[in-house]
Amino acid sequence: MDSYEILKKVSTGELSPEDGAELLKRQEYADLGFAKIDTDRKHRTGAAEIIYCEGKADEHLACIYRSMMNEYGEVFGTRASNSQYIAVKESVPEILYDPVSKILKYEKQGKEKKGLVAVCAAGTADVSVAEEASQTAEFLGCNISRFYDVGVSGIHRLISNIDKIRAANCVIAVAGMEGALASVIGGLVSCPVIAVPTSVGYGASFGGLSALLTMINSCANGIAVVNIDNGFGAGFMASQINRLAVR
Amino acid sequence: MDSYEILKKVSTGELSPEDGAELLKRQEYADLGFAKIDTDRKHRTGAAEIIYCEGKADEHLACIYRSMMNEYGEVFGTRASNSQYIAVKESVPEILYDPVSKILKYEKQGKEKKGLVAVCAAGTADVSVAEEASQTAEFLGCNISRFYDVGVSGIHRLISNIDKIRAANCVIAVAGMEGALASVIGGLVSCPVIAVPTSVGYGASFGGLSALLTMINSCANGIAVVNIDNGFGAGFMASQINRLAVR
Amino acid sequence: MDSYEILKKVSTGELSPEDGAELLKRQEYADLGFAKIDTDRKHRTGAAEIIYCEGKADEHLACIYRSMMNEYGEVFGTRASNSQYIAVKESVPEILYDPVSKILKYEKQGKEKKGLVAVCAAGTADVSVAEEASQTAEFLGCNISRFYDVGVSGIHRLISNIDKIRAANCVIAVAGMEGALASVIGGLVSCPVIAVPTSVGYGASFGGLSALLTMINSCANGIAVVNIDNGFGAGFMASQINRLAVR
Amino acid sequence: MDSYEILKKVSTGELSPEDGAELLKRQEYADLGFAKIDTDRKHRTGAAEIIYCEGKADEHLACIYRSMMNEYGEVFGTRASNSQYIAVKESVPEILYDPVSKILKYEKQGKEKKGLVAVCAAGTADVSVAEEASQTAEFLGCNISRFYDVGVSGIHRLISNIDKIRAANCVIAVAGMEGALASVIGGLVSCPVIAVPTSVGYGASFGGLSALLTMINSCANGIAVVNIDNGFGAGFMASQINRLAVR
Amino acid sequence: MDSYEILKKVSTGELSPEDGAELLKRQEYADLGFAKIDTDRKHRTGAAEIIYCEGKADEHLACIYRSMMNEYGEVFGTRASNSQYIAVKESVPEILYDPVSKILKYEKQGKEKKGLVAVCAAGTADVSVAEEASQTAEFLGCNISRFYDVGVSGIHRLISNIDKIRAANCVIAVAGMEGALASVIGGLVSCPVIAVPTSVGYGASFGGLSALLTMINSCANGIAVVNIDNGFGAGFMASQINRLAVR
Amino acid sequence: MDSYEILKKVSTGELSPEDGAELLKRQEYADLGFAKIDTDRKHRTGAAEIIYCEGKADEHLACIYRSMMNEYGEVFGTRASNSQYIAVKESVPEILYDPVSKILKYEKQGKEKKGLVAVCAAGTADVSVAEEASQTAEFLGCNISRFYDVGVSGIHRLISNIDKIRAANCVIAVAGMEGALASVIGGLVSCPVIAVPTSVGYGASFGGLSALLTMINSCANGIAVVNIDNGFGAGFMASQINRLAVR
Amino acid sequence: MDSYEILKKVSTGELSPEDGAELLKRQEYADLGFAKIDTDRKHRTGAAEIIYCEGKADEHLACIYRSMMNEYGEVFGTRASNSQYIAVKESVPEILYDPVSKILKYEKQGKEKKGLVAVCAAGTADVSVAEEASQTAEFLGCNISRFYDVGVSGIHRLISNIDKIRAANCVIAVAGMEGALASVIGGLVSCPVIAVPTSVGYGASFGGLSALLTMINSCANGIAVVNIDNGFGAGFMASQINRLAVR
Amino acid sequence: MDSYEILKKVSTGELSPEDGAELLKRQEYADLGFAKIDTDRKHRTGAAEIIYCEGKADEHLACIYRSMMNEYGEVFGTRASNSQYIAVKESVPEILYDPVSKILKYEKQGKEKKGLVAVCAAGTADVSVAEEASQTAEFLGCNISRFYDVGVSGIHRLISNIDKIRAANCVIAVAGMEGALASVIGGLVSCPVIAVPTSVGYGASFGGLSALLTMINSCANGIAVVNIDNGFGAGFMASQINRLAVR
Repeated sequence: MDSYEILKKVSTGELSPEDGAELLKRQEYADLGFAKIDTDRKHRTGAAEIIYCEGKADEHLACIYRSMMNEYGEVFGTRASNSQYIAVKESVPEILYDPVSKILKYEKQGKEKKGLVAVCAAGTADVSVAEEASQTAEFLGCNISRFYDVGVSGIHRLISNIDKIRAANCVIAVAGMEGALASVIGGLVSCPVIAVPTSVGYGASFGGLSALLTMINSCANGIAVVNIDNGFGAGFMASQINRLAVR
Repeated sequence: MDSYEILKKVSTGELSPEDGAELLKRQEYADLGFAKIDTDRKHRTGAAEIIYCEGKADEHLACIYRSMMNEYGEVFGTRASNSQYIAVKESVPEILYDPVSKILKYEKQGKEKKGLVAVCAAGTADVSVAEEASQTAEFLGCNISRFYDVGVSGIHRLISNIDKIRAANCVIAVAGMEGALASVIGGLVSCPVIAVPTSVGYGASFGGLSALLTMINSCANGIAVVNIDNGFGAGFMASQINRLAVR
Repeated sequence: MDSYEILKKVSTGELSPEDGAELLKRQEYADLGFAKIDTDRKHRTGAAEIIYCEGKADEHLACIYRSMMNEYGEVFGTRASNSQYIAVKESVPEILYDPVSKILKYEKQGKEKKGLVAVCAAGTADVSVAEEASQTAEFLGCNISRFYDVGVSGIHRLISNIDKIRAANCVIAVAGMEGALASVIGGLVSCPVIAVPTSVGYGASFGGLSALLTMINSCANGIAVVNIDNGFGAGFMASQINRLAVR
Repeated sequence: MDSYEILKKVSTGELSPEDGAELLKRQEYADLGFAKIDTDRKHRTGAAEIIYCEGKADEHLACIYRSMMNEYGEVFGTRASNSQYIAVKESVPEILYDPVSKILKYEKQGKEKKGLVAVCAAGTADVSVAEEASQTAEFLGCNISRFYDVGVSGIHRLISNIDKIRAANCVIAVAGMEGALASVIGGLVSCPVIAVPTSVGYGASFGGLSALLTMINSCANGIAVVNIDNGFGAGFMASQINRLAVR
Repeated sequence: MDSYEILKKVSTGELSPEDGAELLKRQEYADLGFAKIDTDRKHRTGAAEIIYCEGKADEHLACIYRSMMNEYGEVFGTRASNSQYIAVKESVPEILYDPVSKILKYEKQGKEKKGLVAVCAAGTADVSVAEEASQTAEFLGCNISRFYDVGVSGIHRLISNIDKIRAANCVIAVAGMEGALASVIGGLVSCPVIAVPTSVGYGASFGGLSALLTMINSCANGIAVVNIDNGFGAGFMASQINRLAVR
Repeated sequence: MDSYEILKKVSTGELSPEDGAELLKRQEYADLGFAKIDTDRKHRTGAAEIIYCEGKADEHLACIYRSMMNEYGEVFGTRASNSQYIAVKESVPEILYDPVSKILKYEKQGKEKKGLVAVCAAGTADVSVAEEASQTAEFLGCNISRFYDVGVSGIHRLISNIDKIRAANCVIAVAGMEGALASVIGGLVSCPVIAVPTSVGYGASFGGLSALLTMINSCANGIAVVNIDNGFGAGFMASQINRLAVR
Repeated sequence: MDSYEILKKVSTGELSPEDGAELLKRQEYADLGFAKIDTDRKHRTGAAEIIYCEGKADEHLACIYRSMMNEYGEVFGTRASNSQYIAVKESVPEILYDPVSKILKYEKQGKEKKGLVAVCAAGTADVSVAEEASQTAEFLGCNISRFYDVGVSGIHRLISNIDKIRAANCVIAVAGMEGALASVIGGLVSCPVIAVPTSVGYGASFGGLSALLTMINSCANGIAVVNIDNGFGAGFMASQINRLAVR
Repeated sequence: MDSYEILKKVSTGELSPEDGAELLKRQEYADLGFAKIDTDRKHRTGAAEIIYCEGKADEHLACIYRSMMNEYGEVFGTRASNSQYIAVKESVPEILYDPVSKILKYEKQGKEKKGLVAVCAAGTADVSVAEEASQTAEFLGCNISRFYDVGVSGIHRLISNIDKIRAANCVIAVAGMEGALASVIGGLVSCPVIAVPTSVGYGASFGGLSALLTMINSCANGIAVVNIDNGFGAGFMASQINRLAVR
């Protein structure tokens, strides 16, 4: 029941104006004590809430997972630890954990995947972030092609795959150290590129700041940047773009 | 003539292998002395080169504008000064200059615009960057709805327009100072949001760094960020997304 | 006995000038060896010393807690660890420890609370800092309304509570990541807002620096900022403002 | 007419639900073309809009000043240049300009001032920011006592005035360079202290960043900080606190 | 078989154009699943791949070492931990580990060393990085003279060795803290100096940033800088320079 | 009349306690309207106030110079512009201006100079700051030996003068760019070294920050640092040290 | 035997020119394998080498301590761990360890102390650094008066001790958080002040950077700054100044 | 006459020891009043002094140019302004000025050039720095091949030239914005690469800092970095490397 419907019911006497005002407030979330469940989010932003596991207490997390399973029949969380996996598994035995991407999820069988997102990673150390991006976009309905270890210090590895990369609706470029991969890809494709700096590196990489600055300053067109190590954010936005392309 | 075609002609004897090797090199740009014209770019990235006017000498700029007009019948440049406008106007009398956005362009009549991009700006001081974004996306074929002066210090101005904003395929959020606009929009729409930090502000805004960090750290999903004041970059990427949505 | 009283006694011969000079020095603190007890502070700044527990040795902390209990019948400390709690409990068995806020306190029964301070927190990870603020202001005599998990990525959660927030004499806005909550609240209320950046976040949040910059650059009026994670400082200042409002 | 009143009229048939929905949107601002006038702000935040003059075109500024004079009979703007003053004076001949604080205002005669705010400035170079704070708070209804050139390198100048400073409901501490003034005052008074770092200094003062960090890290209680050189922000918040104290 | 050879075979019919296009892609690396082996690197950049051990899983690392031994009869890796050494030793029993430089290698007997590289380190704490540089350059065919503990706080230790240092084709200057060593050496020798800032220091050394800035700003000629603690990078480049000098 | 004397007079009835309290406040400065003259400073810190001219209005500056001349027969100011010189000259015709150091002063004839301070500057561009230091220390009673253009890129220029430098009671080391001079001197002398980073440099010198960090991180003993370009501060402290050595 | 003596012996034939050249090199240090002992330092800089223990291997440290004891009959090291103490104690049973300052030393009995250095610390958490400073200066021959817990949030604690502080030849001001102590002291004394920022604090104190910037930007005269937590450096320089004052 | 020769003459009585000691000092520079001419530099570092013109007074610069012409018959300076050119031309009529590179020089006719240095620039805005590098290396005896406008956003422009670039002994990679060019080249060549970040860019490029960080963190081997915009430094070091290769 959205604002207009509430107003309509008030005008027909189905609702008193006092109740209408209350409903306008209550309609969009339910307050469950330790968290406000944003039940309106799927309607509003196109996707159910994805759980950021890091820092959540085991019992809270298990409870949230159980609730999501009950409501949606599937659930997806990022940055989960192995001990959180064990705790959740007691409540949700079918849950699966991937220690590389740190994703803890259960996905409905037989979901249709549409379109294509290409995920490119510069080095093997960036794979953890790249998989967070890939699996997020997969969960949200995309086909994924993965191109890992294609960093610019051996540019031929990237160029030899460029036709396959160009087939995607959106490219995610994941790189740490100097982060040059996004610029090179940006100059070779015509679809949007989402750049993910990673904290891979040492010395003056400053935990990913160097790669972030590189990507923000890219001389190529069609590139935008998410936070350091934020594979989830890139996968989410890529799925939005892919969905627009295939509807 | 792409790589495969060249190889094919070599195999049929139409081309010697020496000439084929040379052609593989020459095919993608023409070296015009003071610049290498990237004539392959439209094919490769979906858009002809857009001119970054700042710092270019008047005579070079006039020459580039003349060439682009001859080749494409239209031309588009950003960050032009008034004196560059006067210099170009002598070669290209039909050129138009907008001192707010600093865009110097001539656009073909009757180009079809498709889809919709929403451009939101926090304050009146951000309009210059917002217009660079809006006009770039317009030139690249998008319809635009503009929502300026909708910053978060008076959040009702934004919320009262939210239905119109939700109608777009992509939202551009332009804000300086604390840059909170992108997060608020990100929580209210289901399409991708491209955030543009601006250098508007003083004191600890550090020329836009504060807004950039705010946007990169956004707690909302579906947001990616371009460089400070880079309205062009946001408009370009928005047009890529919009094009995917309407094809 | 303040300066004027000392001078008066000197003039009447009750005090020698030598003793008067000595008293002027000694009146405001007592030197207890490992610390100078600022016994004048309550008179001077309106509140007895609150104990910053972090880094203090167990035996020193227990001694300080015992002394404060003896002198005031209550005691309040922040950033206490569980092991400090155990150490203090041996000397002060009635002491209470809250592992969320890390506050270690004993409060007199039946203290009157006056006025109202609203404490808003963006996410569940900010609750620890928000509770430090809330409990500090409570100890210092304020009623508190808590609004947690009302961050800007789901702005309706905040807006639906705005009338209750507007009832307060002072609002504390606690947020990490991009810290946009303070600006949004600042645009919606007419009382002072004290903003507390938290170190919640990752990547380019730089341990709370991003949220701090956001808040310092806020485009809304009536906002001032305390140090990262300094819930105590916000609660203290809020209690000062609230006390002015209800006297 | 607030939300409840609109809903009430809809329930009695005075308003159709469609018009009610429209009114809910339109009620809080009027869109005047180059700016959205926030006519609801006085009701919402307790003060009419104060004009930030920097960067506004002369003709726009004159128009805004004329409108505010017509609506409120007084007007107040900060960071005005001398040439803006000349431009506004043609439309609003009674306008007054103070080149030290760069405030451009006309204030109604005989407004009652209540309570007391103390404004302390470390050096003579900080007076410009201190006056912006003082005059802002005065315009918003406060009595002001000024204590300028009381920086910590000659601490006796501050201490000899401390009784007068303690008489205020709120203290504003303005300082550049190392910004230590706020901490010293914070240890000597019992009311809230709003600290304003200034860009006064050279070398490693980094345009006020050093003073900002000093103030944010203050070891004294009851201090919060506004942006560098933001005298207006401090004056505004001080007037909010003072108003609470005197109502 | 390089591009020209492939084209030639296509022209003679030895290769179909389709196979030629495929070969152009495949020729330069082999995809081994968890990593793309850059088998062309030795031809392209003059050195076989050197292994960056940090963060690699034990089983992957052992596998890589075994493969490199099989292919080249020697292998060289940096930043290896003691536990990685134990893991690799099971597959490659002849492997040797140096806990100071953290280099894990097996080098062919009797390799000829040519030319001379001088490696200077400011303090004893810099020896770990200096040894990474020295042993890298040795592995790549250079003779090395080591001058450790020759920092500028006792400049005579450096000056008394200056003739021996001048005998080298390239000098590597390794220093943390204030990093002044590179400038002093740069003013005393006529060959290129590669400066390596180290993370040695505390307080405002900021993990090597201070030394990095010192070296980048050096007033002496003929100095270039590699990343903080990147002894390998300096040793690699020094070996390139030395090879040019002795060929 | 210090505190004790005031108390004594109160005890003998020469002063009423009210007047005594007032005198305790008034004794240490005189409030001259636009500035509080710190007349007690010479007694308290050993030197009359030195004037920081930058940013002071011409009429104020002339007035201050006239007053100082009347009171002390000499006057000394730093960072004066040529136009300030012209303005002051009208009131104080005997005033002298040095455009290199930007010092504006009149010094009594025949003042005795004692002890020795050595001022070393790395490059010719640092001379302006070095002269501010030298002339400040001279005015405050020191003999000065100047060693300019002795930077570390040609270390022999420094070493050949080292005996003369060792003759001083205190050395001031002035350097921009990488700032290594202070460390080298610190390793060669046994007296205190005051390091002055300068804003000389470009690129990553960041306005003197690089030199500041170098000096703060110096591996040599007996070095402390003043603000970037703060020749005055170094000269002042050197004169304090020299005075201790020669008394 | 210094340079002139060597030259003299060469001229008389006591030394061959070859041996003279060699001696010029060898005279100033002895190369002991893992370190170059700077035996000339005492002559050159006025103090024997003080040992920076952090990061040194137990066996090396024990060896160095044994050697120093043999040569000088006393030894002094900073930043020693408890386990290093245990290791050294086996070789040097008379060694003493202070876990607060982390100093590991043996000092000759009955050394005369001269002059006076005052060491002031802002808070109890700064005592560790303050003791490093105090004990260093004591070892180097100074009398010390300690004033701890005299931070500016309770300024009377400092002011009541100011006469005793003024009795010193040099003041060391140790403070973390906002670091304002140095400025306040600098305005109250006439001798040089050496400021030591400490890493005490949280949030935006950035490991002492905030305090460092405060101290470098101090508005008071006669202050210079050493590295964060560098109590040793301050104590060393204070002893140099004190020695000049008492000779 | 070096140290050994002086010692020899002392031993034979040709020189007194006093004169020998004096000569040891005087031998390596001549003090010309406003500058110390480093006449030993050519012998010591392999190249006569190159003049950094920026900030030098016209009359000093003209004098230096005249002297260099007299001594060497050629002269070379960087960062000269047009007005400096006019001033120098009066003394040295044959002098030539290039406004692009800002180089002011006169070069002997018919100097032999040896070897090859490749200078690659990312964009047309980087040409000014690239020319400073190219002409410096040319003056110092290198042949140069220039590859300008070969930035990574159109990678084919670089790859099509790679064989010519590989022919050089050393490559200089000049790039602003995100600075990715150096990494890509580093992966494609086997000779040393000297990377020059430029201040070209806007927003978060921070005057070249972003490009500097990118280059320092490069994942490719054989890259070292000079200061932002320091084309001279790169050209100088490249000439050192080239000279080693061709001797």
